[in-house]
Amino acid sequence: MNAIFGELDHPPRLLMGPGPINVHPRVLRAMSVQLLGQFDPEFTAYMNQTMALYRQVFETQNRWTFLINGTSRAGIEAAMVSVLAPGDHAVVINAGRFGLLLMEIAQRCGARITTVEAPWGSVVDANAVEDAIKRVRPRLVAGVYGDTSTTIAQPMSEIGALCRHYDTLLYVDATATLAGMPAPVDAWGADLVTAGLQKCLGGPSGSAPITISERAAEHIFSRRHVERGLAGAPAMEPKGERIASNYFDLAMIMDYWSERRLNHHTEAASMLYAARECARLVLEEGLPERFARHAQAGQAVVAAAQAMGLEVFGDPAYKMTNVTAIHIPTGIDGERVRARMRDDFEIEIGSAFGSLAGRVWRIGAMGVNARKHAILSTFAALEAVLRQEGFSVRGGAGVDAALSVYQGS
Amino acid sequence: MNAIFGELDHPPRLLMGPGPINVHPRVLRAMSVQLLGQFDPEFTAYMNQTMALYRQVFETQNRWTFLINGTSRAGIEAAMVSVLAPGDHAVVINAGRFGLLLMEIAQRCGARITTVEAPWGSVVDANAVEDAIKRVRPRLVAGVYGDTSTTIAQPMSEIGALCRHYDTLLYVDATATLAGMPAPVDAWGADLVTAGLQKCLGGPSGSAPITISERAAEHIFSRRHVERGLAGAPAMEPKGERIASNYFDLAMIMDYWSERRLNHHTEAASMLYAARECARLVLEEGLPERFARHAQAGQAVVAAAQAMGLEVFGDPAYKMTNVTAIHIPTGIDGERVRARMRDDFEIEIGSAFGSLAGRVWRIGAMGVNARKHAILSTFAALEAVLRQEGFSVRGGAGVDAALSVYQGS
Repeated sequence: MNAIFGELDHPPRLLMGPGPINVHPRVLRAMSVQLLGQFDPEFTAYMNQTMALYRQVFETQNRWTFLINGTSRAGIEAAMVSVLAPGDHAVVINAGRFGLLLMEIAQRCGARITTVEAPWGSVVDANAVEDAIKRVRPRLVAGVYGDTSTTIAQPMSEIGALCRHYDTLLYVDATATLAGMPAPVDAWGADLVTAGLQKCLGGPSGSAPITISERAAEHIFSRRHVERGLAGAPAMEPKGERIASNYFDLAMIMDYWSERRLNHHTEAASMLYAARECARLVLEEGLPERFARHAQAGQAVVAAAQAMGLEVFGDPAYKMTNVTAIHIPTGIDGERVRARMRDDFEIEIGSAFGSLAGRVWRIGAMGVNARKHAILSTFAALEAVLRQEGFSVRGGAGVDAALSVYQGS
Repeated sequence: MNAIFGELDHPPRLLMGPGPINVHPRVLRAMSVQLLGQFDPEFTAYMNQTMALYRQVFETQNRWTFLINGTSRAGIEAAMVSVLAPGDHAVVINAGRFGLLLMEIAQRCGARITTVEAPWGSVVDANAVEDAIKRVRPRLVAGVYGDTSTTIAQPMSEIGALCRHYDTLLYVDATATLAGMPAPVDAWGADLVTAGLQKCLGGPSGSAPITISERAAEHIFSRRHVERGLAGAPAMEPKGERIASNYFDLAMIMDYWSERRLNHHTEAASMLYAARECARLVLEEGLPERFARHAQAGQAVVAAAQAMGLEVFGDPAYKMTNVTAIHIPTGIDGERVRARMRDDFEIEIGSAFGSLAGRVWRIGAMGVNARKHAILSTFAALEAVLRQEGFSVRGGAGVDAALSVYQGS
């Protein structure tokens, strides 16, 4: 007996967690556009446009700027496995769950790892990174610019400069910040930067924009091995240690995105349509304007929380604008609050990972939701729910404080 | 200066190549549905429904039936890297480009590979597979059920029985056949089977359905290492050799799709919506009806080609129903024909890989395009183009022959 279930039919939910967030309606519409063949000139033109769009979003001149077909984690793994061969040294900046993820992926690449650590909620000192670089002379330094688990953004300019000075490659995971906070790849001097659509870019998870510097591309191409069974692939002597993944072999993926169009995967066209539309929206708004909108939204969230007598987690000097962690008051069951927010108000806020699980909520204000109405509705709901749960809040305090930020008072 | 480009705006193109093909309108609409949070009960219900739907599509009882977030190639790599540790023996059935791909991926897993080969256009003898199994006692036998490069489907029942007999795991790549030709996973005795949406399932590339038998899951879980930084993850002693990929670590991905819901990636929700709707369409139509529709479409393609004096490539006893390779007549430039088909008729037919490049076209009739009007239009166009290119065809021969198949005469 077949169980076929019904059509997709769920309430419109305001997604104010650390991502995914609500997708911009234009991006939803882009995904409903009919396909083209993957080597159709119209489609390869879209691919080239997508490259040009993401160069602007990443603020880079990098020729190699394209999409990995997978979630943001796919972008991270593609960058690391294509650079790191077994035995290579890597320095990993670790001050949150996604720093741990970088370590874990580097370990699976067989790299020898040196970590530079800081407690969750703070950043790593660039001097400590320099010490580690001097000690092991790594192939790669890797860090997260905006770790949603801690809401902290590790500054990257100094680390980029160090990596240039010591001739090591720098990988930055900008999943949670790209198009929400400044992430100027070339100004940083970063060599590989990846992201996802489901945060400040305002799209769905499933496509990972990546940009790669010339010197990183050169290293990756030194490991290139062209797949058998491809016609027209010029005979090339296998060089360097073969990249341990086929799917994430950036040398092959760059061949696919180049004029050579060597077949690799079948590009996920609907996700490319989504990624392209996300970038168009970002650039139509303008990067500075978009950063300012996210910054203002973040200020409103912090102001509302504090006015309600709630404490914001983490070093404010390095706090991401687009995600805010708020301590769960003593005696309040954080998961009950989240369930009531969802059940009574159709609003989702986030829980937390690791040592912060059960201790903070995470409230995101990103993409289409980095807007006044979304923040006001969220704090009106949170106030009502907290009151129901027995936490005393002055009526309207949070909403009024958020409004004040928008009214510039 | 920003270059933002215009909206997506391309001609409606009939995609009659080996995939991707035109997406069913209901699948396009499903992708335009707004998101939910990834641990929202409404969303996890969709995940569970998707598992139940694909159990029916794969004709399996396997609990572990879900989606890999990437293209069909991502599904292949997830299956192989999660099973094969460095030094493991693998027997790979290779009679086409995608057999070569299985070899290439198994090599990157560090496996010791024994191939059983057949010329493109034919199948491998099960006795040769048995000999190889007896010789090396592999961890895994891997083969392709429907290699679009050759249009041949390797029979899997006997090989499944062999793998059960010799207690080895069987992986089958059913990307190009699932929901178009019978691929009864449990009846075969296959342990891991993967697919993609962009062929007979009638969706876009970017999500890879996978199913995993209990014994394969047991082996994979024996290599489980839970990620640091996850709260609530029970302490588990690392066992077995760690899977070389984080993104494709099926043990972690199964934890994510289980009641434990251990966070791994952020599920690509829009692609899940697409995959779910593809399966609903398949099951509403009914598997036998859908297989018959694809078989009839394949007969119509072959009849039309032969009536036009064109020769069909490959052993007809094992030919896939949904893709047909047609020899390019002597003196005809295959790429010029494809360009005219596209430019004059907005119809795409496929080129070929490897030794068949320049020698055959590949015509697919899959999903929404495994229908009379699509085949008639394609052959009407092909006749006109071939005549323009100087190849003599009796007017209407192809279209009439295809119509005859549909009229049962």
